[in-house]
Amino acid sequence: LKSRTEASLWCFIAVFVRAAIKHHSDASVLDFSAKDPGDSEKIIDALKKIIPGESQQHRTLIGDLVKPKDTVLFITPIDSEAPEGRLILPQNQAIRDALDNHCIAVVVKETELDDFLKLGIPPALVVTDSQAFGYVATRIPENVPLTSFSILFARQKGDFNDYLQGTPHLSKLKDGDNILMLESCTHQTNCDDIGRVKIPQLLRNFTGKNLSFTVVGGLSEIAPIDYSLVIQCGGCMVTRKQLINRIKPFTEKDIPVTNYGMVLAYVNGIFERATRMFL
Amino acid sequence: LKSRTEASLWCFIAVFVRAAIKHHSDASVLDFSAKDPGDSEKIIDALKKIIPGESQQHRTLIGDLVKPKDTVLFITPIDSEAPEGRLILPQNQAIRDALDNHCIAVVVKETELDDFLKLGIPPALVVTDSQAFGYVATRIPENVPLTSFSILFARQKGDFNDYLQGTPHLSKLKDGDNILMLESCTHQTNCDDIGRVKIPQLLRNFTGKNLSFTVVGGLSEIAPIDYSLVIQCGGCMVTRKQLINRIKPFTEKDIPVTNYGMVLAYVNGIFERATRMFL
Repeated sequence: LKSRTEASLWCFIAVFVRAAIKHHSDASVLDFSAKDPGDSEKIIDALKKIIPGESQQHRTLIGDLVKPKDTVLFITPIDSEAPEGRLILPQNQAIRDALDNHCIAVVVKETELDDFLKLGIPPALVVTDSQAFGYVATRIPENVPLTSFSILFARQKGDFNDYLQGTPHLSKLKDGDNILMLESCTHQTNCDDIGRVKIPQLLRNFTGKNLSFTVVGGLSEIAPIDYSLVIQCGGCMVTRKQLINRIKPFTEKDIPVTNYGMVLAYVNGIFERATRMFL
Repeated sequence: LKSRTEASLWCFIAVFVRAAIKHHSDASVLDFSAKDPGDSEKIIDALKKIIPGESQQHRTLIGDLVKPKDTVLFITPIDSEAPEGRLILPQNQAIRDALDNHCIAVVVKETELDDFLKLGIPPALVVTDSQAFGYVATRIPENVPLTSFSILFARQKGDFNDYLQGTPHLSKLKDGDNILMLESCTHQTNCDDIGRVKIPQLLRNFTGKNLSFTVVGGLSEIAPIDYSLVIQCGGCMVTRKQLINRIKPFTEKDIPVTNYGMVLAYVNGIFERATRMFL
């Protein structure tokens, strides 16, 4: 500290910050200097007390749908939009979940699906990218459980039962209905943005109705308009808890809610077959 | 611009920067304002001219080892060091490479390896994590090509023939030999650092010799000491070209070179079997 004035200033700031924290939270306030790592245990202990227990719980994607030694078939088309040289994170996470559940994970593009099926190994579960569902559904026998990556992730992040009930409302939309697209981040949008362009186009084609869409991103306040339907994004940047809390005000008002992945499934005719196993 | 003085200053800076670029490079200098995106085509054209053609080429990991419709078996143990909920990037990239080559990718932990083998599908290629090689080698018939993720990546990044010739020098190390550990980034090290702790320990155990190690990271200058062996890291942060250029001064002096992955393979007894298919 260079001077008494500076010391007084810091002291004032400390008192002010402490008061502000007390006002907004019931967390305990600890004195801590980043220059003295000896104090770090105190901080870690305090954090442990306020972290919700469920934030440590890993929700399985497919663990309740399979048993050890089952073969799980993942169908991952590689199109021009795919990143170079790797699988996207949801596919990567689904394969890992199969391994964590002691399964044999088989990964093919839709063009090699028949080659795998010829090997004569019946998969216990098939997970496809939504865009290949039409083709995949014709190749996989009706009695084999078939779902999509996006539906597995809708189940992991968000209130799946609300989505299951809300999604069929897509068939009941009327001219003039206003749909809320609820995003949980503030991503850079492009001309093919899923919430701003793709889903609105798909839903106008699917319903043949004159629909309007309101997009709310990040943690922005939501204007109290009567929406006919709320469509929540995948929520990759937020926790399950945050996502469920964001949806709650709508379900409490009996406004139907669904999710980007479920909507894509529904308009592609996947919905009934791909959710049957969760009912 | 707020004043004539400021305008003159910017003009001086522009002239100075232009001269400095001319001095260090034979690239052409373009006037460009980020506020006027209309100029961006000029910049893109200039960049296209100086980007080496090979930076656009994607080197396959397994494409020359398999044919379309082959089954490729990946063995990926999940230990306590594994990240939560996903596969690590090299495994992810190898699976994608199998898909790009129209193969059927099968992914199992070593604990489900026998369950897959019981299905009776002969894999055309088996790729294992080095740490499971001992066990895997006993389960996979001798006539099935078997290699490790680290060897595939040593081949993708670096001069594989130099590594092939340099690696067996590990058996010829003598007391007092000084080994250069060549890293290509300046990562945060921990108590179990592979270049500073793990490999030195492994090599002292393997050879029974009194060895010394010099670690050079990032793009630091290399002191002209006579090294007995150079061990290059995986090079995930640099290009193949950068890595090969960094190794060249040593191969020109006939100093044997190898790579972290190849060393791990050698001391684990994987080396001969896991490189046979590349000879």
